[in-house]
Amino acid sequence: MTYFNVDKIKYEGSKSNNIYSFKYYNPEEKLGDKTMAEHLRFSVAYWHTFTADLSDPFGVGTAERDWDNLDEMGKSKARVEAIFEFMEKLNIEYFCFHDVDIAPEGKTLKESNENLDIIVDLIQEKMQQTGKKLLWNTTNNFTHERFVHGAATSSNAEVYAYAAAKVKKSLEIAKKLGSENFVFWGGREGYESLLNTDMKLELDNLANFFKMAKSYAEEIGYEGQFLIEPKPKEPTSHQYDTDVATGHAFLQKYGLDNIFKFNIEANHATLAGHTFQHELRYARDNGLLGSVDANQGHPLLGWDTDEFPTDVYDTTLAMYEILKNGGLNPGGLNFDAKPRRTSFKQEDLLLTHIAGMDTFALGLRVAYKMIEDNFFENIINKKYQTFSEGIGKQIVEGTTSFKELEEYAHNITKIENESDHLEVIKTQINQYILNINNGD
Amino acid sequence: MTYFNVDKIKYEGSKSNNIYSFKYYNPEEKLGDKTMAEHLRFSVAYWHTFTADLSDPFGVGTAERDWDNLDEMGKSKARVEAIFEFMEKLNIEYFCFHDVDIAPEGKTLKESNENLDIIVDLIQEKMQQTGKKLLWNTTNNFTHERFVHGAATSSNAEVYAYAAAKVKKSLEIAKKLGSENFVFWGGREGYESLLNTDMKLELDNLANFFKMAKSYAEEIGYEGQFLIEPKPKEPTSHQYDTDVATGHAFLQKYGLDNIFKFNIEANHATLAGHTFQHELRYARDNGLLGSVDANQGHPLLGWDTDEFPTDVYDTTLAMYEILKNGGLNPGGLNFDAKPRRTSFKQEDLLLTHIAGMDTFALGLRVAYKMIEDNFFENIINKKYQTFSEGIGKQIVEGTTSFKELEEYAHNITKIENESDHLEVIKTQINQYILNINNGD
Amino acid sequence: MTYFNVDKIKYEGSKSNNIYSFKYYNPEEKLGDKTMAEHLRFSVAYWHTFTADLSDPFGVGTAERDWDNLDEMGKSKARVEAIFEFMEKLNIEYFCFHDVDIAPEGKTLKESNENLDIIVDLIQEKMQQTGKKLLWNTTNNFTHERFVHGAATSSNAEVYAYAAAKVKKSLEIAKKLGSENFVFWGGREGYESLLNTDMKLELDNLANFFKMAKSYAEEIGYEGQFLIEPKPKEPTSHQYDTDVATGHAFLQKYGLDNIFKFNIEANHATLAGHTFQHELRYARDNGLLGSVDANQGHPLLGWDTDEFPTDVYDTTLAMYEILKNGGLNPGGLNFDAKPRRTSFKQEDLLLTHIAGMDTFALGLRVAYKMIEDNFFENIINKKYQTFSEGIGKQIVEGTTSFKELEEYAHNITKIENESDHLEVIKTQINQYILNINNGD
Amino acid sequence: MTYFNVDKIKYEGSKSNNIYSFKYYNPEEKLGDKTMAEHLRFSVAYWHTFTADLSDPFGVGTAERDWDNLDEMGKSKARVEAIFEFMEKLNIEYFCFHDVDIAPEGKTLKESNENLDIIVDLIQEKMQQTGKKLLWNTTNNFTHERFVHGAATSSNAEVYAYAAAKVKKSLEIAKKLGSENFVFWGGREGYESLLNTDMKLELDNLANFFKMAKSYAEEIGYEGQFLIEPKPKEPTSHQYDTDVATGHAFLQKYGLDNIFKFNIEANHATLAGHTFQHELRYARDNGLLGSVDANQGHPLLGWDTDEFPTDVYDTTLAMYEILKNGGLNPGGLNFDAKPRRTSFKQEDLLLTHIAGMDTFALGLRVAYKMIEDNFFENIINKKYQTFSEGIGKQIVEGTTSFKELEEYAHNITKIENESDHLEVIKTQINQYILNINNGD
Repeated sequence: MTYFNVDKIKYEGSKSNNIYSFKYYNPEEKLGDKTMAEHLRFSVAYWHTFTADLSDPFGVGTAERDWDNLDEMGKSKARVEAIFEFMEKLNIEYFCFHDVDIAPEGKTLKESNENLDIIVDLIQEKMQQTGKKLLWNTTNNFTHERFVHGAATSSNAEVYAYAAAKVKKSLEIAKKLGSENFVFWGGREGYESLLNTDMKLELDNLANFFKMAKSYAEEIGYEGQFLIEPKPKEPTSHQYDTDVATGHAFLQKYGLDNIFKFNIEANHATLAGHTFQHELRYARDNGLLGSVDANQGHPLLGWDTDEFPTDVYDTTLAMYEILKNGGLNPGGLNFDAKPRRTSFKQEDLLLTHIAGMDTFALGLRVAYKMIEDNFFENIINKKYQTFSEGIGKQIVEGTTSFKELEEYAHNITKIENESDHLEVIKTQINQYILNINNGD
Repeated sequence: MTYFNVDKIKYEGSKSNNIYSFKYYNPEEKLGDKTMAEHLRFSVAYWHTFTADLSDPFGVGTAERDWDNLDEMGKSKARVEAIFEFMEKLNIEYFCFHDVDIAPEGKTLKESNENLDIIVDLIQEKMQQTGKKLLWNTTNNFTHERFVHGAATSSNAEVYAYAAAKVKKSLEIAKKLGSENFVFWGGREGYESLLNTDMKLELDNLANFFKMAKSYAEEIGYEGQFLIEPKPKEPTSHQYDTDVATGHAFLQKYGLDNIFKFNIEANHATLAGHTFQHELRYARDNGLLGSVDANQGHPLLGWDTDEFPTDVYDTTLAMYEILKNGGLNPGGLNFDAKPRRTSFKQEDLLLTHIAGMDTFALGLRVAYKMIEDNFFENIINKKYQTFSEGIGKQIVEGTTSFKELEEYAHNITKIENESDHLEVIKTQINQYILNINNGD
Repeated sequence: MTYFNVDKIKYEGSKSNNIYSFKYYNPEEKLGDKTMAEHLRFSVAYWHTFTADLSDPFGVGTAERDWDNLDEMGKSKARVEAIFEFMEKLNIEYFCFHDVDIAPEGKTLKESNENLDIIVDLIQEKMQQTGKKLLWNTTNNFTHERFVHGAATSSNAEVYAYAAAKVKKSLEIAKKLGSENFVFWGGREGYESLLNTDMKLELDNLANFFKMAKSYAEEIGYEGQFLIEPKPKEPTSHQYDTDVATGHAFLQKYGLDNIFKFNIEANHATLAGHTFQHELRYARDNGLLGSVDANQGHPLLGWDTDEFPTDVYDTTLAMYEILKNGGLNPGGLNFDAKPRRTSFKQEDLLLTHIAGMDTFALGLRVAYKMIEDNFFENIINKKYQTFSEGIGKQIVEGTTSFKELEEYAHNITKIENESDHLEVIKTQINQYILNINNGD
Repeated sequence: MTYFNVDKIKYEGSKSNNIYSFKYYNPEEKLGDKTMAEHLRFSVAYWHTFTADLSDPFGVGTAERDWDNLDEMGKSKARVEAIFEFMEKLNIEYFCFHDVDIAPEGKTLKESNENLDIIVDLIQEKMQQTGKKLLWNTTNNFTHERFVHGAATSSNAEVYAYAAAKVKKSLEIAKKLGSENFVFWGGREGYESLLNTDMKLELDNLANFFKMAKSYAEEIGYEGQFLIEPKPKEPTSHQYDTDVATGHAFLQKYGLDNIFKFNIEANHATLAGHTFQHELRYARDNGLLGSVDANQGHPLLGWDTDEFPTDVYDTTLAMYEILKNGGLNPGGLNFDAKPRRTSFKQEDLLLTHIAGMDTFALGLRVAYKMIEDNFFENIINKKYQTFSEGIGKQIVEGTTSFKELEEYAHNITKIENESDHLEVIKTQINQYILNINNGD
């Protein structure tokens, strides 16, 4: 059966009117020593693309999908077929999933695991046939009602055990499918209210959970990168993994900072009050940039809208951070994004991915050119030049003291600061975008 | 000269109509083995109360003060007289200041320091006469135009040196006046835009700054507690000391977590997207709760309104955290709050402090009663009881594994979670507030 | 069958530890010439209380209900039984529903209407038996996928027709059951993006829809009050009925301001950037205060949390506006609120309503006492006294001119403004709350 | 004296590296029958550009200006020289001011007016020499402490009279200088708290104020367009002119909707929770789009940052609305924007204006091309086609009824909605931007 009635999407350049073509993403085109595909490492999110129905808190799903009328296992099998066709047609090498995305939960843990086994075998077969790869998998420990009070931070030890068993199974799947990363998003790890929450106990338990996960991964020889995905306040009123800095504090406190990196989502960054670039930069500066959930939020809305990225400013600055990080490998750009509820046709799955891929490809082109020109580097070097010699250098090297600095200060006759002409920098970014040579 | 034409404010109980009386704050009344004064350790903020003019970005100051027409040093001296009279009349033991609050800046660093010396002598004399104490002092490294690009994170090494010299002087003042704490609020330590910011260099420099400050304190034998005050995004677009967790990450990274605690401000908490209680709890759980800037924000406004605390829910939960922390000593409750621009008379300084003191005193009474009753403790113990034995205890103690937990999970027949009846807890808090025995 | 295994909830006063009792709500107690029940006119919301499952965007429902395992019509019938028992046990006189809350949608409009007829007959019978009354009913034109682009503002004329047919049926139900009000909440009346929206056409169509609704009500002799419920940006990115002022502009533009009033929800007010009191005041000042959806939001979250009201400041100020409005009759206080996802037991339905009823009852007691004392009125009269005579009076009466005012201004020697001591007012409210005489 | 040591800024096209050149703004280039200058009608804001010092609530001004050391009248005269040189060098035809921007306030109203007369004469002379024009003037009734409780909504009738006298003088200046518009921004027209505010009286007084202003304008024969500038919650907690819809409600209520239009500011729109485009659209749809304050806000900050516009998405959509409005004439695009505090040199005034002008010029080019192609129009026509005939047409024309619609609905077999492929539209906007033919 064919799910997407189009030919493989081709690069046609920026003037094309064909909505089923790439305007900026030319997978095999090289920027430096890597192809665009190697730079971008795009990944399809199983849940938004093949499982979700586009419901919202005020309405049922609007999605129209070929598998809507199949039974649960029938749906699961059809989705496997569909995602591999989808990746082929879009020229995407990677995909990601939660356990519950790929197979229905059974009445018992055992039955759930058996369902998983069937589908994982199917996926493995398809991976071998097609060469497609698993960017990461993860465990959904938030949707089921048993997780009402959390999973690894539940107030109920039985739930904690159940959550652990599910992650154990997911790690086994990761091992089997060669998942390049393993992600933790703590959907219910937080609190509705502090009034009845023992935050310290819950975080201690969470740290132990992570340690056991790592031990088990070592035990089975799974070597993928472990990633935490920060998010500030949805679905709980306070999510423990608020943002990268909060996660960094947690990892350091519990001695986990050499084991975990972060999977950073654009929309989670803005909900936390930060720019996407800020979260990427914080992680990069601390050697913690693991992977990216590529989407965008609505700046006026207070929840996770998970829109496909279409803002070239955001993708340019994100790709700048990623390039400066030496890329994301073994991480990638996973489209944790869903079509709008009003884009409900199956074809919208293709069209929205084209939108996201093209916008990131454009961002890559612009960022790459800026780095070639040392655009930001020249600005930074000039701005901080006083720290490259004399007292400034001593400050950086930690070889001075308040006494010495006071003496220095007494001898300053007049401090001259430089204007940083920030507005000019912003319009120069516009120039870079408008002048990008698309090769066509 | 007399600045506040009232008698010493007395406790008259909750039925009093005298706006110049305390309704809930009875300083010598004991709750347990401490007086209310010892529990609360109130402090007057020099800047809002004696220096500020109630201007805002759209209007000049409205404050009417007796010293408005004096010259700069005349103002400084009058304010010293005024604050000591003020503390006496309000029965407040502590005060706090920035260097620039107490004495005018001179044309040179030397001249500024000479001005400071004159006023510090005057303050010391008053302290000796009255027994009033300095809760903390700090350095204003943000108002002057030289700090346009930051102070300890400036892109200009000369500015960094100047900032260091100012903090050095402040530490000497702290030593001389026996300041119980020393605070750092990084008013310009952050960025307007990442586009031209080397965040890593700036944070490395900030850490070195803190280390030099500590070294110098040790050198001069100053032993007050060092405190960082978090705030998320004002005045810069991104302030480095965003919230307690971000500060915790920073302190751990640079090995400073045994040297610093936090000075937590209610309004900064909410601007960071957290409740006041959350920030206090996070700090308490990590042994980092140093002192409190007692104010409240406007939940619908996106900037620091620094209102006097009048919400008894907030003060009750804050006092709960503080009591559970064993109090704040050597920290205290500093009123980092200003009268509304429309409360511009000198008498409003008294009235607003009475408002804040009474609301915190009421919060103390309620929280104390709740702790006597083990109100929250009973809720918590019941909620987390599964972690006190069996597999739950093993989880807490770190003596189990994913394999063992999986085995346990397979044997669960049905998970039973408890409803937490959160709404009942909230109305029980109302009952506690309404039923508080005021002793009158 | 009995759904709520408790006796009728009784007033036991503020010291009671019985969670199944009222602490402040004493229905027959008189405040002035009305009982508390007459002042408050509480109403149960069918949807949150009897239909919703406490799911959220990240998790399935957690609610445990006696009717969970029945078929659709079985559920509908059980819920009718349950809500009337519920109202009896809580001493609540009113209820509210959407069409889809009470009966399942059929495959056709005809079938849906037949389902409605069956349940409406059952409800009517129960109403006659018990004397309970319908505060308002409304039409759910947002949940079904047909409303993906709106209902009365859909881009599809067929959907518009379908929506009209549903409202027609709802009006007939309103007539039959004697509904005292009829509400319009435009769940999908707004836009996801302006890029593909003809806002003018959509609003013109919406106005025509309202006019046809009114015509049809007149045709069938239905005389209930028509109400619009404002909400700013959920579920669409921009909801047309943003807030009361926006609705007021719309009603005036289309000549509908004599036909409609507003149903004001606390949580919608804060999402729109206003206090609950502001929205009530705006409506009251313009003769547009119709009814109230009594709930509260979470000040740090950007979506509609629909919490039961537990904040006595909010309920006091709301009841102040309502009392000054001469009450809400024929409107009332409808609990558009849901238990937290963690309060999932059937008993939580009772407990949360007790929480909300007690908090509003307490607010009523405080506000009533304040009005008896002319507390706010004295403040206002003093503050605006210059407008009661001379030039001030001329300004109010519109009998002066810029020339006259300029002449007056030239003769002012010094303008003296009064401080408004706002902080004192806030603590006096605390005193009113703490000193409320509960009659026990 | 020369204030800006550069030649007149020239259009050099999009590849130019000269920061003192226009890349997209080519004033004499025609798009259709208007030049770019005629389309855009740029205006310099006196206050941000020539009066402000770049102070913020936490720091003194950083601006370095040639007139810093002059006395007050000397500054005022220098600024007149400077702004006319500035407009000449930037090829800007219009400027805007508040009364207090151009001349210092005196000790009395009379003295203030005399200062104004001197400077207005100077400005008039310069206007005659250069042909530059006044887009609008306004009255600053918010900075001075007398306006602590408002101006036209003050609780003090004397303040109201004083405010009226100031507006009277401003109207005389408008008449004398041929100001094409007259703006009201109610900087203090709102409330800090409802607790002590008589909102109804204040709004009645405000309406009377506007009526007297209009009468006086008629009396002196001033025929410029009257404009209200909405803003939601700064500096007061609630500003009465919250957004365009709120202003529309006010104007209709008081019968002022034929007299006033709106001056819409981008940053005020977003602070009110709307997109800039939304506010423009609302005004356009209602014939109320008067003029534009061209700036942009920071999406993560909760106050008015007044940044120069650099986001081409925003300027494209704004210019689309403006072109569809038939332009803004007699309004224009006034740069109500300030350099960042870190862009403090006098040359930054030029550079920031170039940034804003180029970004709006680029937006104009893109929007113009889109309209040529009927890009949005085609989308809209297709989306709403069911309203162009049959039952849809009857709905639009108001010639149907609920009964007829119900009958129609019963006959629908299956409703087919169209996906709106919103993500495709967004990437097509990217294509339009990237493919814009700059003429070079």
